[in-house]
Amino acid sequence: MKYRMMRAPMGWNSYDYYDTAVNEQQVKANAGYMAAHLKEAGWEYIVVDIEWYAKKPGSMREKYQYIPFGDVQMDDYGRLLPDTERFPSAAGGNGFGPLADDIHSLGLKFGIHIMRGIPRIAAHRHLPVWGTDVRADEIADPSSICGWNPDMYGVRKGVKGAQEYYDSIISMYADWGVDYIKCDDICNTNLYRENQYSAAHEIEMLHSAIQKNGRDIILSLSPGPALIEKAWHYEKYANMWRITDDFWDDWKLLRNMFDRCELWQNHVAQGSYPDCDMLPLGKLGKGFGKEWDTRFTKDEQITMMTLWCIFGSPLMIGAELTLLDDWTRELLTKTDILKLTGNDYVGKQAEKDETHAVWSCWNEKTGEAYAALFNFTDSEREISCQVQEIEQFCGCLPRVCGAKELWSGKEMALEQGCLRARISAHGAGMFLLK
Amino acid sequence: MKYRMMRAPMGWNSYDYYDTAVNEQQVKANAGYMAAHLKEAGWEYIVVDIEWYAKKPGSMREKYQYIPFGDVQMDDYGRLLPDTERFPSAAGGNGFGPLADDIHSLGLKFGIHIMRGIPRIAAHRHLPVWGTDVRADEIADPSSICGWNPDMYGVRKGVKGAQEYYDSIISMYADWGVDYIKCDDICNTNLYRENQYSAAHEIEMLHSAIQKNGRDIILSLSPGPALIEKAWHYEKYANMWRITDDFWDDWKLLRNMFDRCELWQNHVAQGSYPDCDMLPLGKLGKGFGKEWDTRFTKDEQITMMTLWCIFGSPLMIGAELTLLDDWTRELLTKTDILKLTGNDYVGKQAEKDETHAVWSCWNEKTGEAYAALFNFTDSEREISCQVQEIEQFCGCLPRVCGAKELWSGKEMALEQGCLRARISAHGAGMFLLK
Amino acid sequence: MKYRMMRAPMGWNSYDYYDTAVNEQQVKANAGYMAAHLKEAGWEYIVVDIEWYAKKPGSMREKYQYIPFGDVQMDDYGRLLPDTERFPSAAGGNGFGPLADDIHSLGLKFGIHIMRGIPRIAAHRHLPVWGTDVRADEIADPSSICGWNPDMYGVRKGVKGAQEYYDSIISMYADWGVDYIKCDDICNTNLYRENQYSAAHEIEMLHSAIQKNGRDIILSLSPGPALIEKAWHYEKYANMWRITDDFWDDWKLLRNMFDRCELWQNHVAQGSYPDCDMLPLGKLGKGFGKEWDTRFTKDEQITMMTLWCIFGSPLMIGAELTLLDDWTRELLTKTDILKLTGNDYVGKQAEKDETHAVWSCWNEKTGEAYAALFNFTDSEREISCQVQEIEQFCGCLPRVCGAKELWSGKEMALEQGCLRARISAHGAGMFLLK
Amino acid sequence: MKYRMMRAPMGWNSYDYYDTAVNEQQVKANAGYMAAHLKEAGWEYIVVDIEWYAKKPGSMREKYQYIPFGDVQMDDYGRLLPDTERFPSAAGGNGFGPLADDIHSLGLKFGIHIMRGIPRIAAHRHLPVWGTDVRADEIADPSSICGWNPDMYGVRKGVKGAQEYYDSIISMYADWGVDYIKCDDICNTNLYRENQYSAAHEIEMLHSAIQKNGRDIILSLSPGPALIEKAWHYEKYANMWRITDDFWDDWKLLRNMFDRCELWQNHVAQGSYPDCDMLPLGKLGKGFGKEWDTRFTKDEQITMMTLWCIFGSPLMIGAELTLLDDWTRELLTKTDILKLTGNDYVGKQAEKDETHAVWSCWNEKTGEAYAALFNFTDSEREISCQVQEIEQFCGCLPRVCGAKELWSGKEMALEQGCLRARISAHGAGMFLLK
Repeated sequence: MKYRMMRAPMGWNSYDYYDTAVNEQQVKANAGYMAAHLKEAGWEYIVVDIEWYAKKPGSMREKYQYIPFGDVQMDDYGRLLPDTERFPSAAGGNGFGPLADDIHSLGLKFGIHIMRGIPRIAAHRHLPVWGTDVRADEIADPSSICGWNPDMYGVRKGVKGAQEYYDSIISMYADWGVDYIKCDDICNTNLYRENQYSAAHEIEMLHSAIQKNGRDIILSLSPGPALIEKAWHYEKYANMWRITDDFWDDWKLLRNMFDRCELWQNHVAQGSYPDCDMLPLGKLGKGFGKEWDTRFTKDEQITMMTLWCIFGSPLMIGAELTLLDDWTRELLTKTDILKLTGNDYVGKQAEKDETHAVWSCWNEKTGEAYAALFNFTDSEREISCQVQEIEQFCGCLPRVCGAKELWSGKEMALEQGCLRARISAHGAGMFLLK
Repeated sequence: MKYRMMRAPMGWNSYDYYDTAVNEQQVKANAGYMAAHLKEAGWEYIVVDIEWYAKKPGSMREKYQYIPFGDVQMDDYGRLLPDTERFPSAAGGNGFGPLADDIHSLGLKFGIHIMRGIPRIAAHRHLPVWGTDVRADEIADPSSICGWNPDMYGVRKGVKGAQEYYDSIISMYADWGVDYIKCDDICNTNLYRENQYSAAHEIEMLHSAIQKNGRDIILSLSPGPALIEKAWHYEKYANMWRITDDFWDDWKLLRNMFDRCELWQNHVAQGSYPDCDMLPLGKLGKGFGKEWDTRFTKDEQITMMTLWCIFGSPLMIGAELTLLDDWTRELLTKTDILKLTGNDYVGKQAEKDETHAVWSCWNEKTGEAYAALFNFTDSEREISCQVQEIEQFCGCLPRVCGAKELWSGKEMALEQGCLRARISAHGAGMFLLK
Repeated sequence: MKYRMMRAPMGWNSYDYYDTAVNEQQVKANAGYMAAHLKEAGWEYIVVDIEWYAKKPGSMREKYQYIPFGDVQMDDYGRLLPDTERFPSAAGGNGFGPLADDIHSLGLKFGIHIMRGIPRIAAHRHLPVWGTDVRADEIADPSSICGWNPDMYGVRKGVKGAQEYYDSIISMYADWGVDYIKCDDICNTNLYRENQYSAAHEIEMLHSAIQKNGRDIILSLSPGPALIEKAWHYEKYANMWRITDDFWDDWKLLRNMFDRCELWQNHVAQGSYPDCDMLPLGKLGKGFGKEWDTRFTKDEQITMMTLWCIFGSPLMIGAELTLLDDWTRELLTKTDILKLTGNDYVGKQAEKDETHAVWSCWNEKTGEAYAALFNFTDSEREISCQVQEIEQFCGCLPRVCGAKELWSGKEMALEQGCLRARISAHGAGMFLLK
Repeated sequence: MKYRMMRAPMGWNSYDYYDTAVNEQQVKANAGYMAAHLKEAGWEYIVVDIEWYAKKPGSMREKYQYIPFGDVQMDDYGRLLPDTERFPSAAGGNGFGPLADDIHSLGLKFGIHIMRGIPRIAAHRHLPVWGTDVRADEIADPSSICGWNPDMYGVRKGVKGAQEYYDSIISMYADWGVDYIKCDDICNTNLYRENQYSAAHEIEMLHSAIQKNGRDIILSLSPGPALIEKAWHYEKYANMWRITDDFWDDWKLLRNMFDRCELWQNHVAQGSYPDCDMLPLGKLGKGFGKEWDTRFTKDEQITMMTLWCIFGSPLMIGAELTLLDDWTRELLTKTDILKLTGNDYVGKQAEKDETHAVWSCWNEKTGEAYAALFNFTDSEREISCQVQEIEQFCGCLPRVCGAKELWSGKEMALEQGCLRARISAHGAGMFLLK
């Protein structure tokens, strides 16, 4: 059985700020900040994103994000290792072990990104698969590639050595102390339009390798959009799956997330979390060659946090943590809102049209009921909702007479069973019903 | 809030045997049989299927199933009424009231089929909508038709009189005593390939009309296949939705149902039932002009009942009940299997490949655990499954040592945690784990 | 064999200015203008567009373009007739006969628009098909409708009375003196996404009815976009087919037409003309409730005329002719450019990229060669083309030394086999090579 | 301008009999046979099909048709060379030069198969592109692969060195004496479902390289089905394009070819030939490990030859020529039928339904008119056709009174303008009208 944690994972991911080029010192600095300032509010995962194995990543950025046919750090069995130029502690065959130890010592957990499959160069060089007499060219599928990253070939289904290859990498990661694996080009293999779930067998092999190993490793699948018709399969084999393509600081994408949360609202469960992707807050994009402050307004950031929490998405901060301003740090440590990502809180969309949405949230054990009001329009307006629309998703509530808006702390009374509030353009309110 | 019953509906439907041409006497005969022989096992709904309003239905069967531009029984407000030639008790404006009373007096419930929308002829005749100053031609959408039945136009979204029309028919049905409405051309409006959910607003209007009326009426949506991306919408507004196109007694369709149940397995909940369609058992097809005995083998019938029950589908018998043989009646009254359609039993697919499937079922309250083994191949074979594959869907089970096959009543011991049995071609076994 | 005229048809169509509401006097006024000012340049067809049979068309314009379930002029055989309120000469069963006579007397030809199929109301009323013992409800297909106009049902394939119905309307039109039929909802039945050519049999029936009748009637099919995979069928049964959805005075649509002409360039032949749709020049839109001057710049109008001519499209003026200004009238009477729509001139695209296109044209009989340069960008720029790119589509040309731009009349010399000219934003030049 | 030959190419191709494993001796034996027995009837091309550069092709046939990551013969510039084990005369850098010379000395022409793009291994090894300072990894596109063959990466569009690479291979082939290039994975790059014409730029680069070189090389594109919406592009840049996926000796595929010929009938022109693929006659499949005699009946073979000829397809024999029986050799040397593939003969489909087809053929210069009757059913039947259906595709014919069936030589008279004959199951008749 897959790992069943009690709440959606919360952490930091290197991608939005560093792209492919993050290094050990930078990871540690972010981990240090998290331990000091965010951990208490529930944040715990530090995740190193894509191409930590690449030599000189980002050096041809004007032409490519991922250098084709570029040099990588790899062992004799086709297993990718951290680039020792960027991760000096990985030298001498240590891999991410020392870095993971550091992070664990802060009371945090450590995650890495991988691409599904086996390195192309391992197949072209006919390298052996660890612990077997099979070679990489026998398990690599030359017709299974990623449409946007040139590093890997997919692993064939049902051939000798295939599961053993996945076992060999998971075992190495577990030895390093990895707690979270974000596997890419696997949730939606979108190059293959007639079969966007062409790597289902690789998901199963990853799951099986993790089960065999026994370490509690979260399996997170990217990129989105996840396929709703495979919901049952994600739910069986993975812990998180991206329900969107890459999310960035753009209102159109945030607005669009309401459609995706609507679609996936009945699929949040213990150990199973549809994933709205990283939170592009604070400072972003330095690794992409153009550092910027999030383009989201404060109201939009409140909308994002409100939606991600009431829906129950994992939360992964994209910002460089050491550069967080006070406002953003407060946004990220609002525990009475963050707690809604816990398994006991069930969020549902109560209403949605072109101008607004209303979500409800209900905790059967505590009897707490919440409502979130969202304003999709470009100007402030009043949004109202009959409490009975919320109640249909809750068990028997006592009569609701008032509400407290949690971001502002304001209390209000309800008139005739109607929750009514002025909401800023692109903004949101999160109400605890009383 | 929609009606939340405690188990998937069980009943009889006139279509498989009578097509469009059923009459009052025939309906009563089936109700009588159900009350006498099936009610005790949980069967309760008697449903009159398509075109009970049509004059001379079936009289042009060699050319059409549904006579285009044919005569119908209708009131002055464009509301269809039972054809009084076939349903004499409907004369004098009684509608289905007397028939519903009869059925209720047997301790059973009464259901009808409707097509979404308003009769085409009502629009072409500019009939008034009941209780309004709006005419049918103002609410009928001339570009919204059913691809396979010529009777209706869809009702426009958001125009004056539209909700009032739906209120007027639901109110009439409730007055008659209708307990169950199977609405067709609404779950998947498959003529509209770019928007197969083009009648979402009509689902909402039906739901709203039922809520306003207050009677506990089950809302069942056809035809399938239901759209998995609209699961949340069905779950919010309806009680049942067909996950398949019309199901008949053909192994290919039965085999295919395993794919559909796989897809929808996580969507069965209180008041929400993905629907595998009617059970084509016993005598079938007389109304289609060629009465026949079900083409399913006995093993296939056991497979069907096992799958429908462990999945949690509604159960609607297609056979003419008065002609049921003993074997079939026993199949339909196996209460220790039928009970798995109750809300407390949660079924999940544990394994599936080209040759077999395994399903698990778990009742958290009682601790009961079940496994079903299915053989997809054309010859008898042994099917085995590690109990741990079942256990992952159950809470903490005591150590499983044996099993009882419920169709046969045979007891068996487990070796090394493995459930193993010989299963007939296209057959199934349903095991209570001990 | 279908009618094989010697050039693409040129004429005027009532739609762009009058929408559904044109009347007899207006048609005659346009015919009078054409005879006086345009006929000499080759213009000859006067076409009455959609819903000439409708009573009070346009009276509910704020809600509908086409009034659903509205009243129509129709004979006892379900054949639509001109609305006698708008076309008084049609009274007494004359139909369009008197109007056609008037137009013929000016040396012009007369065309009408029809919707494919049979009036819905004729089917619901069970009217007889002329000259048969079949009724409209027997040949009307209740599942074949137009997605945007509510008037008709499609006619079934291969049923008794179907061809006879089409014969009966064509015979009536021929008796009236109709020279051109623009049939709508037939070239692309776009409601039916899985079969956008679902009315192929109705095209064949129209063709067959015209053949039987013997009058030289042009068969023009709408709406577009025509289906390239059915090119062979259009070429066999029709004279013109719309390669675009409705074309209006919008640069995006004009820019897009280059992609469509690229696609269809090898399909222009004697009697076969892919149709770029009407020319939205001059005064437009009064019938739509908001008369306006074409939104095309003069350069864009030159581009349109140049492309339509070198490609070989039919030319149908959308403007109210009596309000043409001098500049537009000159544009429309440039005979040395208009003549390129003749069958002996073969146009081909020589180059196209994001910024420009070059077309060639070659008349094998006279040896004339032309090149058109088009500027897609928003500012004036120089466009050049090696003459050899043109020559590959021509037979053996003498050495090309110079060129004459035909809109301006300017002569120029070529340097090193390169045609080079400054072209305005969204503009064009048409060069006769020398 | 591309090469414009006077008739569709006729020849032999190694694939159907030898798969990937043909050798020099075998090619020569087939050439010898062609020169002695077929050349007089017009056959002239000898084409070596896929993977002539592969080492030990076919040695892992039970697992792969094309060995992934296998060894190939290649020069220092990433240009593939004939495997010298199988083509000894290629040793010493001769390439296919000596073999081409041999074939030319027989009065025949020589063709080769290539995969679009550059060898994957050349990119992974960073080999230089001939005559440039660019490396293979700079022009290879790691996301452009073939879905069914593992050898190559596509070449990027518009990057330095890309055209030079194609120039370098075409120049080498021209030096060898190659007359015909069949390029694969280029006509329809079917892995890329959203852009099945993703290699359009590679077609243009091949065309351009051939133009620059100057040798009359036929450019043939595979695999099909070709995209009808790109007809204009094939017509501009190539000589032949496959209108079908691989064709084999299976009636379903042959029946299906009538749909494809219908679609492409108006696209046969001088130098432009939609290609129905090879003729699977005689002995087949030895290289696939299971030599067999064609599964086509004699009647089906006659149907195939009749359709290919009247349509105007290229003709490429798949059989091992040295093993041809007399019946097949006669079939392949029927010059009064083969001549219909000449440019002056224009074939058109006159009729087609579920049971039969009729094609016409017309030579404007000679006035010859032909009709072919095809029987799609599984039993002999009479097929008839009004001569006027044929005549609509011909210029003015003299009155047709009789016909000669060309396969049998039988003469017949026509009654009442009707061509009528008994045709065998799946068979055909080819009639010269008189």
